[in-house]
Amino acid sequence: MSRICEIFVLMPPSIYATPRATALAARVRDFVENELFALETPEHLTGLHSRIALLLESKRALVKAAGLWGLAWDKEAGGHGLTLCEFGQISEEMGRTPWGHFVFNCQAPDIGNMELLHRHGSPEQRERWLHPLMAGAIRSCFAMTEPEFAGSNPTRLGATAERDGDAYLINAHKWFTTGADGAAFAIVMAVTDPDAPPHLRASQIIVPTDTPGFRMVRNLPVMGESGDGWSSHAEIVLENCRVPPTHLIGTQGHGFLLAQERLGPGRIHHCMRWIGISERCLDILCRRAVSRSIGDGKVLADQQLIQSYIAHSRAEIDSARLHVLNTAWLIDQQGAATVRDAISAIKFTTANMMLRVVDRTIQTLGAWGVTDDLIPAFWYRHERGARIYDGADEVHITSLAKSVLKKYRV
Amino acid sequence: MSRICEIFVLMPPSIYATPRATALAARVRDFVENELFALETPEHLTGLHSRIALLLESKRALVKAAGLWGLAWDKEAGGHGLTLCEFGQISEEMGRTPWGHFVFNCQAPDIGNMELLHRHGSPEQRERWLHPLMAGAIRSCFAMTEPEFAGSNPTRLGATAERDGDAYLINAHKWFTTGADGAAFAIVMAVTDPDAPPHLRASQIIVPTDTPGFRMVRNLPVMGESGDGWSSHAEIVLENCRVPPTHLIGTQGHGFLLAQERLGPGRIHHCMRWIGISERCLDILCRRAVSRSIGDGKVLADQQLIQSYIAHSRAEIDSARLHVLNTAWLIDQQGAATVRDAISAIKFTTANMMLRVVDRTIQTLGAWGVTDDLIPAFWYRHERGARIYDGADEVHITSLAKSVLKKYRV
Amino acid sequence: MSRICEIFVLMPPSIYATPRATALAARVRDFVENELFALETPEHLTGLHSRIALLLESKRALVKAAGLWGLAWDKEAGGHGLTLCEFGQISEEMGRTPWGHFVFNCQAPDIGNMELLHRHGSPEQRERWLHPLMAGAIRSCFAMTEPEFAGSNPTRLGATAERDGDAYLINAHKWFTTGADGAAFAIVMAVTDPDAPPHLRASQIIVPTDTPGFRMVRNLPVMGESGDGWSSHAEIVLENCRVPPTHLIGTQGHGFLLAQERLGPGRIHHCMRWIGISERCLDILCRRAVSRSIGDGKVLADQQLIQSYIAHSRAEIDSARLHVLNTAWLIDQQGAATVRDAISAIKFTTANMMLRVVDRTIQTLGAWGVTDDLIPAFWYRHERGARIYDGADEVHITSLAKSVLKKYRV
Amino acid sequence: MSRICEIFVLMPPSIYATPRATALAARVRDFVENELFALETPEHLTGLHSRIALLLESKRALVKAAGLWGLAWDKEAGGHGLTLCEFGQISEEMGRTPWGHFVFNCQAPDIGNMELLHRHGSPEQRERWLHPLMAGAIRSCFAMTEPEFAGSNPTRLGATAERDGDAYLINAHKWFTTGADGAAFAIVMAVTDPDAPPHLRASQIIVPTDTPGFRMVRNLPVMGESGDGWSSHAEIVLENCRVPPTHLIGTQGHGFLLAQERLGPGRIHHCMRWIGISERCLDILCRRAVSRSIGDGKVLADQQLIQSYIAHSRAEIDSARLHVLNTAWLIDQQGAATVRDAISAIKFTTANMMLRVVDRTIQTLGAWGVTDDLIPAFWYRHERGARIYDGADEVHITSLAKSVLKKYRV
Repeated sequence: MSRICEIFVLMPPSIYATPRATALAARVRDFVENELFALETPEHLTGLHSRIALLLESKRALVKAAGLWGLAWDKEAGGHGLTLCEFGQISEEMGRTPWGHFVFNCQAPDIGNMELLHRHGSPEQRERWLHPLMAGAIRSCFAMTEPEFAGSNPTRLGATAERDGDAYLINAHKWFTTGADGAAFAIVMAVTDPDAPPHLRASQIIVPTDTPGFRMVRNLPVMGESGDGWSSHAEIVLENCRVPPTHLIGTQGHGFLLAQERLGPGRIHHCMRWIGISERCLDILCRRAVSRSIGDGKVLADQQLIQSYIAHSRAEIDSARLHVLNTAWLIDQQGAATVRDAISAIKFTTANMMLRVVDRTIQTLGAWGVTDDLIPAFWYRHERGARIYDGADEVHITSLAKSVLKKYRV
Repeated sequence: MSRICEIFVLMPPSIYATPRATALAARVRDFVENELFALETPEHLTGLHSRIALLLESKRALVKAAGLWGLAWDKEAGGHGLTLCEFGQISEEMGRTPWGHFVFNCQAPDIGNMELLHRHGSPEQRERWLHPLMAGAIRSCFAMTEPEFAGSNPTRLGATAERDGDAYLINAHKWFTTGADGAAFAIVMAVTDPDAPPHLRASQIIVPTDTPGFRMVRNLPVMGESGDGWSSHAEIVLENCRVPPTHLIGTQGHGFLLAQERLGPGRIHHCMRWIGISERCLDILCRRAVSRSIGDGKVLADQQLIQSYIAHSRAEIDSARLHVLNTAWLIDQQGAATVRDAISAIKFTTANMMLRVVDRTIQTLGAWGVTDDLIPAFWYRHERGARIYDGADEVHITSLAKSVLKKYRV
Repeated sequence: MSRICEIFVLMPPSIYATPRATALAARVRDFVENELFALETPEHLTGLHSRIALLLESKRALVKAAGLWGLAWDKEAGGHGLTLCEFGQISEEMGRTPWGHFVFNCQAPDIGNMELLHRHGSPEQRERWLHPLMAGAIRSCFAMTEPEFAGSNPTRLGATAERDGDAYLINAHKWFTTGADGAAFAIVMAVTDPDAPPHLRASQIIVPTDTPGFRMVRNLPVMGESGDGWSSHAEIVLENCRVPPTHLIGTQGHGFLLAQERLGPGRIHHCMRWIGISERCLDILCRRAVSRSIGDGKVLADQQLIQSYIAHSRAEIDSARLHVLNTAWLIDQQGAATVRDAISAIKFTTANMMLRVVDRTIQTLGAWGVTDDLIPAFWYRHERGARIYDGADEVHITSLAKSVLKKYRV
Repeated sequence: MSRICEIFVLMPPSIYATPRATALAARVRDFVENELFALETPEHLTGLHSRIALLLESKRALVKAAGLWGLAWDKEAGGHGLTLCEFGQISEEMGRTPWGHFVFNCQAPDIGNMELLHRHGSPEQRERWLHPLMAGAIRSCFAMTEPEFAGSNPTRLGATAERDGDAYLINAHKWFTTGADGAAFAIVMAVTDPDAPPHLRASQIIVPTDTPGFRMVRNLPVMGESGDGWSSHAEIVLENCRVPPTHLIGTQGHGFLLAQERLGPGRIHHCMRWIGISERCLDILCRRAVSRSIGDGKVLADQQLIQSYIAHSRAEIDSARLHVLNTAWLIDQQGAATVRDAISAIKFTTANMMLRVVDRTIQTLGAWGVTDDLIPAFWYRHERGARIYDGADEVHITSLAKSVLKKYRV
C-alpha cells in the first residue's frame, strides 16, 4: 500500500500577507514537504523521540544552512524581525508535520522561554541560557501546571520559593512539564510573596535540572505513549532545590505578569500550528476522497457526505485563519493586553475546529484512518489536549463572556 | 414593561477598516440607533409595510439631508466610490434594524438592479429606470425563481421570451419575487435561446409591471405574513407579455453571466446584513442577561450556560465578519470570478451563524423572546430563508467541495 | 401547485403497545388524516382561531359520535382508563395536526385542569367547572407565569391571594396564559401564605373570568400572530379580584404540590405531541424528497445530504419516543415523584429534537418551506416556545445534572 | 494521587428488565467492579495483551467458578437461554471495563463465531472448533475486511476460494482481522462463486492459522499500539492456502447470508458495550466533578458547563439504551431481517453518543484526562473505530434513509 504523498496547493492570497512573509512561508513549506513528510512513518509516529532525534538534528543542520533558523526572532537577535502576524503564516507551514517547529527551533516551550529571556533575562541569564537555546544546543522546559490545582485559576499555586539566606529554596510538584526529559533547565513558577495580592504572589525562576532535589518522577503516559526527550510531558518534583537569587527572571512577584505576556504570542503560535494541522488533514482527506473507489466507477469524492466534510472544513479553516491572523495583527498594533477577548476566542474555537477536521479526515480514511500508518491518528491522540492546555475551553468561554458582559454591567 | 434600548458598543479595530469607511459607518450607526430603532414596535414587526411606509419616506428624507444617500454607488454615479469591502462595513450597520437598507436606498433587490443597470443598461434604460430608482422614486423587482424548478440548478428555467416581430413575447411563472407588489418594473430572467448551451440560454429583460399580461397572483404568505409593498414576496405570472427589444439588458443570452456578476456583491451585502443582525441580537442578549434577576441577587448573566451563548456568539460573529470582509477584499482585488469558493463558504456559514445567534437570543429572553414585542422573533421568522435563498446550504456545500476537489482530480 | 397529501405509514411495533392503545391510536390516526389534515390551509395557519372555530366544533361532534371523546379520562370519569403510557401513543397521533388535541378535547391547558379538578376538586367545583369542561362546553386557562419573574424558579411569584373576610382578594400580573381569551375561568397560582417555606406559599384558586377586576390586557403577539380564543396567549391582570374560599383547589399552600403533580403527565403530553409533529414533518420531508426533480432524472431523495436529514430524523424520533414512553411507563409504575430526572431529560431533548426535524423539513422543502402553504412553517414559529415553556432547556439541564450529582456528593 | 474508585449506582427500572436478567446483571456488575476495575493500570492500558494474559486467565477461572461462564449461550449449549434483549443488559455491565467481555468469554469476534458454528457448523466443526472456543481453550478470528475494497459495499471482495481437487484453494489479503494473533483458526470470507449474483458469490470457510500459506503480515499499529493476542488487529495474507471442503460453513455461496445473520446480534452486543463504556465514563466524570476543587469552596460540579455535560450524557445514554434494547426485543420477536432500519439507526447513533460522552469525560478530567492513568483516554483511542467498523456512519445513514424512502417511491 503506497503512502499518501503531498503536492502543493495554493492558498488564496490574504490581506495579511507581506512579500517577505509569503516568500519565507513558501521556502518553509518546500522544506517541510521535501525533508520532513518522509519522517512520518509508523515507527516515528508511535513511541520514542530518541528514535528520531539524530535524524532531526541533521534536518536542523539543513535548516541552518538554508538560512531558515530562528525565524521568530527579532532583528537584533539575529532574526528576520517578522511581526507576529507574519510569523504566524510561517508557523502554519511548520505545523503541517509534527516535527516542523522543532526542526526550525520554534517549538514550545523553548520558543516562549527564548522570548521571555530575550525580553526579561539578565545579561548573565541570556549568556548562560538564552544563547545555547538559540543555537539549539540545549532544551528547556516551563514548569507551571500542578496536579493538585485546577488550571482554571492560575493564581492558585502550591509551589513555593522562599528566600533562605542567599538562595531561593524551592519546593514544587508539577506535571505536564513538556520536554522536561533532557532539558538543561526549567523555568519554574513558584510563590515567592504569599502575602501579596494573588496575581503578585509568584515569580519565575530558572532551575537547572541537575540541581539537587530536582527529580523527574515520570514521563506521563499520554494517549498510549510516555515518549521521551522533547516529545514528552513530565511529572516533576522539586524538593528543597536551592538556586541563587540571580536565577530570578525579572522582578520578584511578577511571575504572572510575565506569564500573561507570553500567552498572547503563545496562543497565536498554537493556533497557527493547529491551522497547519487542519490544512494538512484536509489535504489528506481530499487525496483519499478522489482515489478511493467505492465501485460502479465512483470514488468517495462523489459522495455528498464526504463533500460536506470537505466544504465545512474548507470554510472553517479559512475563517479560523483570518480570525487568528487578525488577532496577531491586533497584538502587533496595540499589544496583547487589549486583545484578550480575541485571544480567548481564537484559542477555543481553533482548537475545536482542528479536532473536527482531524476527525472528519479519519472518518473519510475509514479503517486506515485509525492506524498509525498515517498522520491523522497521531494528531487525534496528541492534539486532544489542545482543548485543555493553555486554558480549557470552559475557562476561555466564561472569561470571554465575562469580558463582553463587563460593558453591560453598571 | 419598558423596551430594551440601545447603547454604543465599540468593535475592535479591523485591518479592513479605512478612515472613510469607519467615519461613514459611525454616522450610519448613529442614524440607525437614533432614528430607526424606535420603529421596531409590535405593530411594525407584524404585518403590512404600508403601515410604516410614510414614516420610512420621512426617514429617507433625513438620510438624503444627511448626505448618506446612495452609499453603495460609484463616484461617477454621485456616490462615495467605496470599495465592496468598505461598503460591507456600512451595510452591517444598516443591517441592525429591519428597515435599515431600505431607508438608505440600499435594499435588495433594488441595489442589485441599480448595479446591473449602471453597468449594463443602455442610456435609455438608465434614464428611464435607473435614475428614478436611484432617487428612490420607484421600486423594482427581480424575477428569477420558479416554483416548478429547484433552485439548485439555476439554468433550468421554464420562463420563455420569444422574439415575435418587434417584441419579446414573455411567458413565465415566478415566485419569491421580492417587492413585486408596488414595483414599477421587473427584471425577468427568461429563456431566449433554447438551443444554446445551458448557461447561454437566458436573458434579462425589463418588464414594466403595467404591461398587459403581467399579473401578481398573490403575495406569498411567509412565516405568518403576506406583507405588502417592499416587504413581500410575490408569486407572479406573465402571460404573453410583450415588451420592445430595447428592454433587453446587455447581450441576448447573457442572462446568467449578468446574474453571476451580481451574485458576488449580492452575497457580501446579505452576509454583512446578517452580521449586523447577529451583532444586534447579541447586544439584546447581553442587555437582558445583566438585567434579568433570577433571585438570590443573581442575574442571568451569572449563569455559565448564558455565558456560553455569549462567548460562542462573540467568537462566531467576529470570525464570520473577517471571512466576509476578506472575501469582499478579494473581490475588490481580483473580481468575483476567482473568489467563488470563498463566496460559497461565507454564504452558508454566515447564514447558519446568524440563525444560531438569533436562536440563542430568543432562548435567553425566555418567553418574551417569542413575542413580537422584540425584534429577535422577527428575524427568527424572516431570516430562516437565508439558508435557502441565493443558493441553499446544500448547493453551496456541494459546489464548494467540488471546486476544492477539482485540484485533486487528475 | 397541488398540496402534499398523506398516506398511512406503519410504525414498528413497540413493547409499550397494548391492543387497546393500538386500536384506539389507529382510529385516531384515521380521523386526524381524514377529517383534520384538510383544515391546514394558509388561511387557518395564519391568524385567528375564530375563523376555524365553527368547523372545529363540527369535528368535535364527529369525535363524540365516534366514541373517541375523552380518551384521557379515567374509567370512573367515563373514559377508557388508559395508562399514561397508552394515552401517550394516542396523543402522538393527535399531535400530527395543530388542532388534533383540541378536537379530541385533550388540549392544554384544559386537559391539565380537568385532571386537577378530577383529583382535587370539591364536588361543587367538579359540578360547576369540571363537567362543562369535559363536555367541551367551556374552556379554561391556567395562570402561573409572570413577566416580572424568571420561570427558572417557580416559587418566586408576585401574585397574592389574601384572605379578606369571606373571600380571597387576588392581585396578579400574569402572561402566557394560554387560551385565556374566551375562557370561562382561570386557575390562578397566587401566594396565600407568604411566611411559609417557599414551596408551601402558593395556592391554586379558581377565578371566573367575569370576576370584577379580572382583565385581559392583550393577546400577546407571538411569532407574527396574536391569535384569539384557544389559540392565543394572554397577558392578564387581576386587580382586587374577590372569590369565595370555596374556589380554593385542595389545601391552602399546596399550590406547588398540585402543580408538580400535573407536570409529569403534562410533559408526557407535550413530548408525545412533539413526536407527532416530528413524524408528520418527516413524512412531508420524504414526500417532497421523492417528488422534487433536480434534473437529470434525479430527485431530492437521491441526494445524500437529504438522506442524512432523513436518517438522523428517523433515528432521533424513534429514540425520543422510546424515552418518553418509558418515562410514562415509569410514572404509571411508581408515580412521577421518583421519575423527575427522566421527565427533565425527555422535556429538553424531545423539544430540541422536534425543532431539528421541523428545521430539516423546511430546508428540504426549500423556498416553499418558509411559506404558510405548508404546516412546517407553522410549527417552526409556534413550537419554538417548546424549549422555553414548562421549564427552559437550561432549567432542565441544570436540574437533571444536580440530581445526578446528588448521589455523588457526600 | 489516588485513583478514582467505583461505587454502585442504581439505574432506573426498565420495561425490558426480567428478574433473571436483572439478577445476572447485578452479579456481573459486582464481578466487574470487584475483580476487573483494579486491572486498569497505565501498564495494562498501554501496550501488550500478553502482559495481562495470565491475570485474565485467573479471572476467567473465577467466572467459571461463579457460574457466570457462557452467559450468551442457548440452554441446549449449556447456557442460560437468555433472549438477546436480556443478554444486552448483561453485556452493558461487561462493557464497563475493557476486558469484561473477554473474561466472560463473550468477546468479539469469538462470540459471533460461536453463534455461527452453533447454528451452522457441522457436527465435526462443532467438535473441533466450537467446543474448545466455548471452553475458552482457543481463540478465533473473522477475516472479512480487505484493504483494497471500501467496506461500504461488502459484496466487493478480492479474496477467492477456488475448488481445486478435494480442497478449497484460498488467496486473500485481509486486515483488521481482530485477534488473529494467537488465534487457532480464522473464518475467512472469500468468493467461491464469482458468476453468481453479488450476494451469493462468497462463502465462509474455516482456515486453521497453521495452514501453509497463512501469514500474519503484522499487527496493525492502531492509535499508538500494535498490541498482541486478543488485543490486536492483524493484516493477514493467505497465499494458496488449501483446506478440505468440510471446512466450508453452511452452504457454498451463502457467506453473506450468514454474515447478515450475525450482524443483528453483533450490533446489539457492540451497542450495549458502548453504553457500558458511556455509563462508566459518566460515573468517572461525576466523581471528578464533585471532588475537584476550583477554589472559593467550589468544585467542578458547581459549574453549569460541567452540569451541561452531565445532563446531556445522562439523557443521551438513557435514550440510546432504550433504543438498543427495543431493537434487541424486536429481533427477539421477529428476527433481524425486518428490523434492519433500527439496527442501522442504533449503530451510528450509539457509537457517536459514546464518543461524545468519552470526550466530555476527558474534558472534565482536564489534563489528567488525556493520560493513560485513567480509562477514558483508552476508550478515546480504541473506540474511535466504532464509527467505522461494522459499517461506517455514512453507510448506515444512507442505508437507513434509502429504506425509509422506499415506502415513498412509487
